Amino acid sequence: MRYIVIGAVAGGMTAAMKIRRNDDKAQIVVYDKDTDISYSGCSLAYYISGVIKDRKSIVPRDVEYFKKFNVEVKTSHKVLRVDPKTKSVLVKDFSTGNMFEDRFDKLIIATGAQAFIPKIEGINLEGIFTLRNVKDADKIKEYIEKTGPKKALIVGGGYIGLEMAEALSLLGMEVLIVEKQKNILPNLDDDMARLVENYLLQKGIQIRNDSSVLRFEGEGKVKEAVLSDKSKIPADFVLISVGVRPNTEFLKDSGIELLENGAIKVDEYMRTNIEDIFAAGDCAAVYFKLNGKTMYVPLGSTANKMGRIAGENATGGNLRFNGILATSIFKVFDLTIAQTGYTEKMARQDEIEYEVGHVTKPHISTAYPGAEKITIKALAELSSRKIIGAQIVGTKGVDKRIDVLATAIYSGLTVDDLFQLDLAYAPPFSSAKDPIHYVGMVMSNFLDKRKFNCTQEKLLQRMKNGGDFVVLDVRTPEQYQKKHIKGAINIPLEMIYQKINQLPKDKPIIVYCNSGVSSNIAQNILQQNGFRKVCNLSGGILNVTLPELLEGE
Amino acid sequence: MRYIVIGAVAGGMTAAMKIRRNDDKAQIVVYDKDTDISYSGCSLAYYISGVIKDRKSIVPRDVEYFKKFNVEVKTSHKVLRVDPKTKSVLVKDFSTGNMFEDRFDKLIIATGAQAFIPKIEGINLEGIFTLRNVKDADKIKEYIEKTGPKKALIVGGGYIGLEMAEALSLLGMEVLIVEKQKNILPNLDDDMARLVENYLLQKGIQIRNDSSVLRFEGEGKVKEAVLSDKSKIPADFVLISVGVRPNTEFLKDSGIELLENGAIKVDEYMRTNIEDIFAAGDCAAVYFKLNGKTMYVPLGSTANKMGRIAGENATGGNLRFNGILATSIFKVFDLTIAQTGYTEKMARQDEIEYEVGHVTKPHISTAYPGAEKITIKALAELSSRKIIGAQIVGTKGVDKRIDVLATAIYSGLTVDDLFQLDLAYAPPFSSAKDPIHYVGMVMSNFLDKRKFNCTQEKLLQRMKNGGDFVVLDVRTPEQYQKKHIKGAINIPLEMIYQKINQLPKDKPIIVYCNSGVSSNIAQNILQQNGFRKVCNLSGGILNVTLPELLEGE
Repeated sequence: MRYIVIGAVAGGMTAAMKIRRNDDKAQIVVYDKDTDISYSGCSLAYYISGVIKDRKSIVPRDVEYFKKFNVEVKTSHKVLRVDPKTKSVLVKDFSTGNMFEDRFDKLIIATGAQAFIPKIEGINLEGIFTLRNVKDADKIKEYIEKTGPKKALIVGGGYIGLEMAEALSLLGMEVLIVEKQKNILPNLDDDMARLVENYLLQKGIQIRNDSSVLRFEGEGKVKEAVLSDKSKIPADFVLISVGVRPNTEFLKDSGIELLENGAIKVDEYMRTNIEDIFAAGDCAAVYFKLNGKTMYVPLGSTANKMGRIAGENATGGNLRFNGILATSIFKVFDLTIAQTGYTEKMARQDEIEYEVGHVTKPHISTAYPGAEKITIKALAELSSRKIIGAQIVGTKGVDKRIDVLATAIYSGLTVDDLFQLDLAYAPPFSSAKDPIHYVGMVMSNFLDKRKFNCTQEKLLQRMKNGGDFVVLDVRTPEQYQKKHIKGAINIPLEMIYQKINQLPKDKPIIVYCNSGVSSNIAQNILQQNGFRKVCNLSGGILNVTLPELLEGE
Repeated sequence: MRYIVIGAVAGGMTAAMKIRRNDDKAQIVVYDKDTDISYSGCSLAYYISGVIKDRKSIVPRDVEYFKKFNVEVKTSHKVLRVDPKTKSVLVKDFSTGNMFEDRFDKLIIATGAQAFIPKIEGINLEGIFTLRNVKDADKIKEYIEKTGPKKALIVGGGYIGLEMAEALSLLGMEVLIVEKQKNILPNLDDDMARLVENYLLQKGIQIRNDSSVLRFEGEGKVKEAVLSDKSKIPADFVLISVGVRPNTEFLKDSGIELLENGAIKVDEYMRTNIEDIFAAGDCAAVYFKLNGKTMYVPLGSTANKMGRIAGENATGGNLRFNGILATSIFKVFDLTIAQTGYTEKMARQDEIEYEVGHVTKPHISTAYPGAEKITIKALAELSSRKIIGAQIVGTKGVDKRIDVLATAIYSGLTVDDLFQLDLAYAPPFSSAKDPIHYVGMVMSNFLDKRKFNCTQEKLLQRMKNGGDFVVLDVRTPEQYQKKHIKGAINIPLEMIYQKINQLPKDKPIIVYCNSGVSSNIAQNILQQNGFRKVCNLSGGILNVTLPELLEGE
């Protein structure tokens, strides 16, 4: 049995090695147009910044390595065409310029994706880069070393843009991010994205939201960018990071079904519409576990799973992919940002009725040195009480909580289950009630309608609608003085019994404190003293990121 | 409604505060015989070592704090008796010596546990301590500061013993641990416990397993201990950490049902056998989620859950406890040790048919600086394919994986599900295939009988039984030379095709490498070339901790 794999990075090499493990007699040939294979695409920003020093760390394996397993990897070989009828591929060998045909019994397409390059005037000027593979990183490193750029412009505030913002900042550049959407990190909800924006501003990174680049200017080399508001931004280094497109151009006339964006359509077994042809990794689409819909979310973790499944099923197996939760994580400076499952944006699109909650808690016991607060935003479905999504921002312990929540969502756990989880507690690792437990407790209360919650977006909407309600700040007068919600009255928690008669029982009250603990207590007291509609401002004022809502010193 | 809570630490104060949140009008009185309340019992070793500097960090709340919530905490008040008929408790006020009765509508017993003190001659000598509460820690700190002990003896190699081994070692003492069982950490399986023992030996901690103390000697102050083998161990500091007993002596004639060890029997709603009397925390028993059996596993994380449930149900709620997985974690020096669910020991007791696997993988991407290997031992049930237990030892990232596995076990996930989990990947946080994914892949192969696994214990048994089989080391000759399994032959992986005819097809082959990657490949090759019974040595030679199995330089 002869297997051809196109593409020698995550999906392709995982598939090839799985085929080898399953079939010792298989002939396996892998074609890749590049010379670097099996590299860690997610490490490139760290290689550029110098956090990862050795190029070999991100390209740990070469052709020789795979030869030991009798897997033939042919680099600088580009597959130009796939012909399902003759079960063959047309290959061009870049080193010789020769073209040849090669026959397969089973084919696995794992050609990955390439950086999308928007049509902008001047985009071909020197000093403008994309970052997708090791060669890109080499070029960027070389350019920085040679020319010592001072002002970097990053077009696109996704996670690659942000990882590179850190890298370029560490290399001494002033960094400005231009983002087309209302906020950077369009895959997050706006409130969480703004937490990240506030952090980046503190770190000296500038951000222009709702903006795009009209044209780049310079002679030969980029010198400045003209933005959509006509402002001119000097820049001697530009990174374009506005997403990727699947490398599937060569499949256009093959009969292999592609989605509108060019991604290969596969079923849960990584089978394309054509027998004996499989696809895996960033060139293919996946499906979202929670609604079964096809999605294009190119990530290394998913590519590895798809590769294994393709390899298994190409050798006669029957391994099904259970779908993704679009779980992702990245760090920028000391901040970690992670998400899994539904965001509010996605839930609204799917017309899911959900409740949302914010929990800000220390990542380990405050008794132990080094505790840092993390903020979790969670979504639960009203009807099923299932936890369906989470976004986390914080400096430590974010990866643990997102993985626990991804596991909980995969398993269909309810918010009530979260409180019950027997998570490991010792002061250096967590608190006796982990942030996950708090998410469970808070969300259970919301869903039981024992507590009402109000997001900052809803509060702003109510204000705009001119609703008749009271906003109550239960922190100290000093805290209130410094910063508070516009129009809020201040009654510190310990005065609440004394002053309870000053509050109107017939109006909705929206109560808040810093992160929700004191306001939760105040909410209890008010509710039990005949106040019918008391809402907690989700996450407290520390998580309020809409500037329109805030006033103070 | 008048609520009395006995005990003002984790279970008690959680219950009291939950009652307050649910019932603003409730009268709540909490009695505690101690003066420190609501303290972090799990932080004591760190307070002694000085890692936690401020006593206030571990006793962050006082009587005044709870007064703000209208919760009356009476310290130095010991409850001597509970009378369910009159619904009253008899209380002794230590400050005045007065006794009085107090009536309750609902009672919550949360008296915790005390250190067990074995009957050993000389145990009352000065310099011999237990560690359970803040006063104990104060005494130990004072004694160490005053007398500057040099040689510490720790009786009992559980997690408190080990945490204290670190603390005392950091304070400059030579430390020896005496453990009654075959290995320290009797709650772990022996193979994993030995990994910890090997680490401790490197750290200069001495260990005497299968040993106990016959008597302590000294004049007034402890000077040495005589062990069961008659050896004399000089010691000017002794910690007794051989477990705890529930504080329930005062309930003996109350009619409240106790288990044999004195723990209060509660149902899933924290109700005792007597109406309106609840119990929570270390004074009560819990049930193991996986078999429904009652267990006594006193842990702070569980106490918090029980307290909340007791408080909720005492105020008319209906919150059910879903049981524990006995999840625990602790660190000793830089090593973290964690477990959840079934160990092999427990699974054998329950006569569960299970498969076991060991996975040793880096905790983050090896491309990124700082990757450290962790070893996961996993148990899966044969019939259901469910993951039912895990033990992890490593320096970093252990807490994340145990929490993911605890969530998976809670959810009833199979080993096949583990591979499918959409865990968050970026090089600073994990590898594209997380160790959890490897656990899933490895265990699925075992359960499918595509691969056979052999633990070191089984290998030793086979050797002792004089079985006719081959042990094959597929590492380099240099590695083989240094250390190998007794009687193993060495064929490096890249020579395996060449020398395959030297191996007998009719005999079982047990193949190994360092941690299982190369041996997995060898196993594939052999299986596909007609070798019927090829077993992989679980976890590789790096995880072999039975000295009888090893030989070399």
